[in-house]
Amino acid sequence: MADVVRNKQVIFKDYINGYPKTSDMLLTSDATVCLELPNNNNDGPLVLTKNLYLSCDPYMRNRMNKSMEGSYIDSFTPGSPVIGYGVSRVLDSSHPDFKKGDLIWGLINWEEYSLIKDTSSLIKIQHTDVPLSYYTGILGMPGMTAYVGFHKICSPKKGDTIFVSAASGAVGQLVGQFAKLYGCYVVGSAGSQEKVDLLKNKFGFDEAFNYKEEQDLDSALKRYVPNGIDIYFENVGGKMLEEVLRNMRLNGRVAVCGMISQYNLDQPEGIRNLFLLVMKRIRMEGFIVFDSYHLYPKFLEMILPLIHEGKITYVEDTVEGLEHGPAALVGLFSGKNVGKQLVVVAHE
Amino acid sequence: MADVVRNKQVIFKDYINGYPKTSDMLLTSDATVCLELPNNNNDGPLVLTKNLYLSCDPYMRNRMNKSMEGSYIDSFTPGSPVIGYGVSRVLDSSHPDFKKGDLIWGLINWEEYSLIKDTSSLIKIQHTDVPLSYYTGILGMPGMTAYVGFHKICSPKKGDTIFVSAASGAVGQLVGQFAKLYGCYVVGSAGSQEKVDLLKNKFGFDEAFNYKEEQDLDSALKRYVPNGIDIYFENVGGKMLEEVLRNMRLNGRVAVCGMISQYNLDQPEGIRNLFLLVMKRIRMEGFIVFDSYHLYPKFLEMILPLIHEGKITYVEDTVEGLEHGPAALVGLFSGKNVGKQLVVVAHE
Repeated sequence: MADVVRNKQVIFKDYINGYPKTSDMLLTSDATVCLELPNNNNDGPLVLTKNLYLSCDPYMRNRMNKSMEGSYIDSFTPGSPVIGYGVSRVLDSSHPDFKKGDLIWGLINWEEYSLIKDTSSLIKIQHTDVPLSYYTGILGMPGMTAYVGFHKICSPKKGDTIFVSAASGAVGQLVGQFAKLYGCYVVGSAGSQEKVDLLKNKFGFDEAFNYKEEQDLDSALKRYVPNGIDIYFENVGGKMLEEVLRNMRLNGRVAVCGMISQYNLDQPEGIRNLFLLVMKRIRMEGFIVFDSYHLYPKFLEMILPLIHEGKITYVEDTVEGLEHGPAALVGLFSGKNVGKQLVVVAHE
Repeated sequence: MADVVRNKQVIFKDYINGYPKTSDMLLTSDATVCLELPNNNNDGPLVLTKNLYLSCDPYMRNRMNKSMEGSYIDSFTPGSPVIGYGVSRVLDSSHPDFKKGDLIWGLINWEEYSLIKDTSSLIKIQHTDVPLSYYTGILGMPGMTAYVGFHKICSPKKGDTIFVSAASGAVGQLVGQFAKLYGCYVVGSAGSQEKVDLLKNKFGFDEAFNYKEEQDLDSALKRYVPNGIDIYFENVGGKMLEEVLRNMRLNGRVAVCGMISQYNLDQPEGIRNLFLLVMKRIRMEGFIVFDSYHLYPKFLEMILPLIHEGKITYVEDTVEGLEHGPAALVGLFSGKNVGKQLVVVAHE
């Protein structure tokens, strides 16, 4: 007979407005899970996992809204676990692509064990000579986001000046490094001196500033990017976007990856200077990494040697224990994390 | 000895805020012009013209501002004539490309005769089996704008749904027809029933509506474009842009040509829903026709047969006499014109 064990979970309580709070989630130990697949299952192939690492990502805020017009992703279900990217060990599987003992990354519930019915997001981990947690970041969704956003949407040219907001985050730190490797001049903004130091001393940004210390973003940009911006990698939205447009050069490109400063506002800030798109012939383009997962093998081919040769650096902010997941997720929206935020559920 | 004649002019008085008024310009008959080129001229090649048709275009509003950050074009000079596109007869020339008797189009002063020093915008008219006034519109800058905007920026696909604002204007009426010829479903908005009738009955738009009669642009768009918009050809900006973004489909494109509704506001309206660029993977791109004049011969090759075969229709709104120029120009901003607005200075 199969073992039945306790399954700690982080439950999403209900749709929210404004900033998320830890009290919007509930840690429960009520659930149990059977550590073998059910017999006579008619639901199609199943994968049973032990979950190791969970990823905290800004887009998850959008899944906490009741519904978002034209949204690319479903809302969380109140009363069910939070869902996010994670790394897991396969305990049992009736799916031909995954077998017991495999490591995978993909969308999983915030819980100790998952019985996964929708296996469409799961990718088998082939390379384990790197920290497994990297598959929540540099080797997972955020890494692919930086890769696709920079190489496909920004249309970079050697010598271009790129500005990256939220630059020490999971995506920003990689965009900046990809841009340096490409031969761009790289400037970033972040929300603390510690992060600015990271940008300049660890990630090799040419310039960086703490936007919270600047009275006037326009003059900060004119100081740190005096010759103007060819490429803006947009992670924050709002006022920063408006001021960056003002400081862009002719034929500039704006890759719109996210707008974290706007997610918790009842009414997003209005951007008043979009006529600059005409005057400066700017292309502004939104993208979602989900559309580009077919490029994942090509991405791995590029990024793994860079990691092994120490040509790319990656900073994680790790909390231990599923019970600290809610605080880690909430902390993203006040910029508490330094680098990629993740949660260790179990080390193995 | 050369004839010296009176040269009526429309003078731009001073930089303005808000909506332009006819009183911002001054008709004067004080100036005179010599109808031969000066001898011993050291200014480089000159072209002396008799001006026939003047074009009224929305972008001219931007030249009435003192300065516009990052502007693509110089402001008018207070006390000097208004400048715009026009069609002229060459009376005398020291420029190798133009000789007496030639017809040209390009940037000229609002006056009866011009001594043109900056000849860089002048193009010799080679085809005179069409109304000459067409070179202020369908065969001139607005025609090229529609061509470049639709074919280069919109990335159209057969079967796409395109929405055009200010659709009966010089550019809009052509974009709609180019899109129909391309195999798109075409919907337009305009500011009167007369214009809506033109769109549907003359220009062959599939649907059209009068935005001034709509309480709620979102519901109007949902009514007239129920399956959503693949391409937005943006001429107006502001609230319309916000509502169109709400009604765009995945992978939509916004070609930003102009934002006429915003030019006269002290503070442009803010666009609050730009996160939709991410959710719907929208590309929004500004362009200026000046960058694409090298395509003019190719454009003529395409458009002249369409005109001769009656496959494209073109509506002009003509006023007679330079003295009515200011009212015609000002009328653009309240939508008084029906079709391309131009001013006849002289018929020959």
